[in-house]
Amino acid sequence: MSQHTSFDRHVESIETELKSAVMGRGDLALYRMMAQHMGWVDELGEPVETRPDLRVHPTLCVMVCEALGGEPAQALPAAAAVELVLRSSQVHGDIQNGVPERNGRPTVWWTWGPAQSINAGDGMHALARLSLLRLADEGLTPERAFRAVSTLDAAALRYCEGQFLDLTYQDRVDITEEAYFEALESRWAALLGCAAELGAQMASAGEGAEQAMALYGRKLGAASHVRDDVMRLWGSAFELMPQAGDLLNKRKSLPIVYALRNATGAERRTLGDVYFKRVMEPEDLDRILEVLERLGAREFAQEKADALCREAIEALNDAGVSAQGLEELASYARYLSAGDS
Amino acid sequence: MSQHTSFDRHVESIETELKSAVMGRGDLALYRMMAQHMGWVDELGEPVETRPDLRVHPTLCVMVCEALGGEPAQALPAAAAVELVLRSSQVHGDIQNGVPERNGRPTVWWTWGPAQSINAGDGMHALARLSLLRLADEGLTPERAFRAVSTLDAAALRYCEGQFLDLTYQDRVDITEEAYFEALESRWAALLGCAAELGAQMASAGEGAEQAMALYGRKLGAASHVRDDVMRLWGSAFELMPQAGDLLNKRKSLPIVYALRNATGAERRTLGDVYFKRVMEPEDLDRILEVLERLGAREFAQEKADALCREAIEALNDAGVSAQGLEELASYARYLSAGDS
Repeated sequence: MSQHTSFDRHVESIETELKSAVMGRGDLALYRMMAQHMGWVDELGEPVETRPDLRVHPTLCVMVCEALGGEPAQALPAAAAVELVLRSSQVHGDIQNGVPERNGRPTVWWTWGPAQSINAGDGMHALARLSLLRLADEGLTPERAFRAVSTLDAAALRYCEGQFLDLTYQDRVDITEEAYFEALESRWAALLGCAAELGAQMASAGEGAEQAMALYGRKLGAASHVRDDVMRLWGSAFELMPQAGDLLNKRKSLPIVYALRNATGAERRTLGDVYFKRVMEPEDLDRILEVLERLGAREFAQEKADALCREAIEALNDAGVSAQGLEELASYARYLSAGDS
Repeated sequence: MSQHTSFDRHVESIETELKSAVMGRGDLALYRMMAQHMGWVDELGEPVETRPDLRVHPTLCVMVCEALGGEPAQALPAAAAVELVLRSSQVHGDIQNGVPERNGRPTVWWTWGPAQSINAGDGMHALARLSLLRLADEGLTPERAFRAVSTLDAAALRYCEGQFLDLTYQDRVDITEEAYFEALESRWAALLGCAAELGAQMASAGEGAEQAMALYGRKLGAASHVRDDVMRLWGSAFELMPQAGDLLNKRKSLPIVYALRNATGAERRTLGDVYFKRVMEPEDLDRILEVLERLGAREFAQEKADALCREAIEALNDAGVSAQGLEELASYARYLSAGDS
């Protein structure tokens, strides 16, 4: 993906901001747990020397700010705050779903046990707000800084609502597309919408632009989540978790939801047999993929991702961005929602 | 305890503020989980009709505000925010320590499972900040409101640090008094200090008063925690958890820490035998209590609580409160740190 290079230009400053938010608070191992989840140290506490990843949410926050005429640096504390809320939820999510590894490394709870990991996630949640304190250094009025806190926490709360639904769905077979999108709206969509909205706030771009960007971010979040659903089942260089893991956790992805609705009697029984098993086994994955392929569930989901991507880009029309900014944000939307190619 | 009546006068308005922060956000069962932990509904979701408890942290916040000449109503959103941070941590703490019940009712994780309870705690953490949004209604400047967020999150982070230490100590026998007080300072002390500091901020009482009140709150938090340690071992009408529970979790309370340091060889072995067991049994409690009594661990801890209480009251001298306010806050300190009588 050639666009990666240009989206990459804020990677270093985002990483520096994140590190300054998390590190330098004493040598309590609590912060090492956080550093492990952020990918800065391994499970033994040894530094991991790699070029930092593109961080999707902070990058969006900074790019939106820039597209609306703001200075990228102004958006960094808010960008870091969204990332920390996301990572805090991820630390907890790994415990909730029993995820043993991420990007080929053990997850925090796998290394430190669930009790300490609940705690590390809580600490990151607090650090997210403390990161916003830096907004004052960037010349933001206290009024706007306080508003940023409320935008962040409204999104954090919606994320919890979505997580609640998601966990509820794991034990159910009869998830409708509407229910799927309701949970989705709350989770990824809420946090990516928050990242874009905060970017607009940091550029002091006015309420119209903030709302347009929030919508852009939400649609983009939904699009990229659906695309992740596809990638997790059919593999990709960008997959975040081992594909079997999600299925074994009975996470309801859009292809599965679609298939459960459209399956014939026999296919339904195949899918049902697997979902009603107490513990799913790896070979069950093949049986499921076969049914999904036959029903066109992959195409359906990718078309949905593409449609959401188009809606995201349409929302930009009301945001008052320059032609160049619009092109970049549209291209980021396509990048995050495109099928593997 | 006759003072209870006068500390009680803010109970209703605190409860109303808390309910408005948590409820009315839709009918997602996520909020029912929170309501269960707050004591408003039982595990079946049925309303619990009891006179609300004295909520220690919010009461302190409101009383400090009042003692410094502020309106109690001004302090309510901040008071509720501290309580929600505390309860959020408690929901997580019950999972971390495997606590099955509180005040005779099942804990949230016991009813809903750990995954959803991690989530409910996260949601309450976000609600705490959203409660602060109400500060604007109380006429507080955005600058002060934003400062309140940072005071709250600094305390929330310290609480996590303390929780980290506490969990670490569970597997260790060799906890010194210094280490005990380090963890203590971070946990109860941080949150009660935060409650008092926010109360002073809400009264716009100036930095000197804020610092004095923060110190008062921290000392009081330490005093009441030590007193809880005593009460949990030797029982009281005010105990929050079944005493055996804490010991079985190998929570390091001050009497235990003192005893481990002062025990003779044989007594040390008795204590050590129990602490090195993988699973502690109820009858082990009697053996421990016997050694503790013999060593004077109870008296030692209660004297420590009394000394911390005196330090809390001394801190009030620099806070610039009226004689009446000083008397009330001193009396609250004695109430929270007094031995069972």
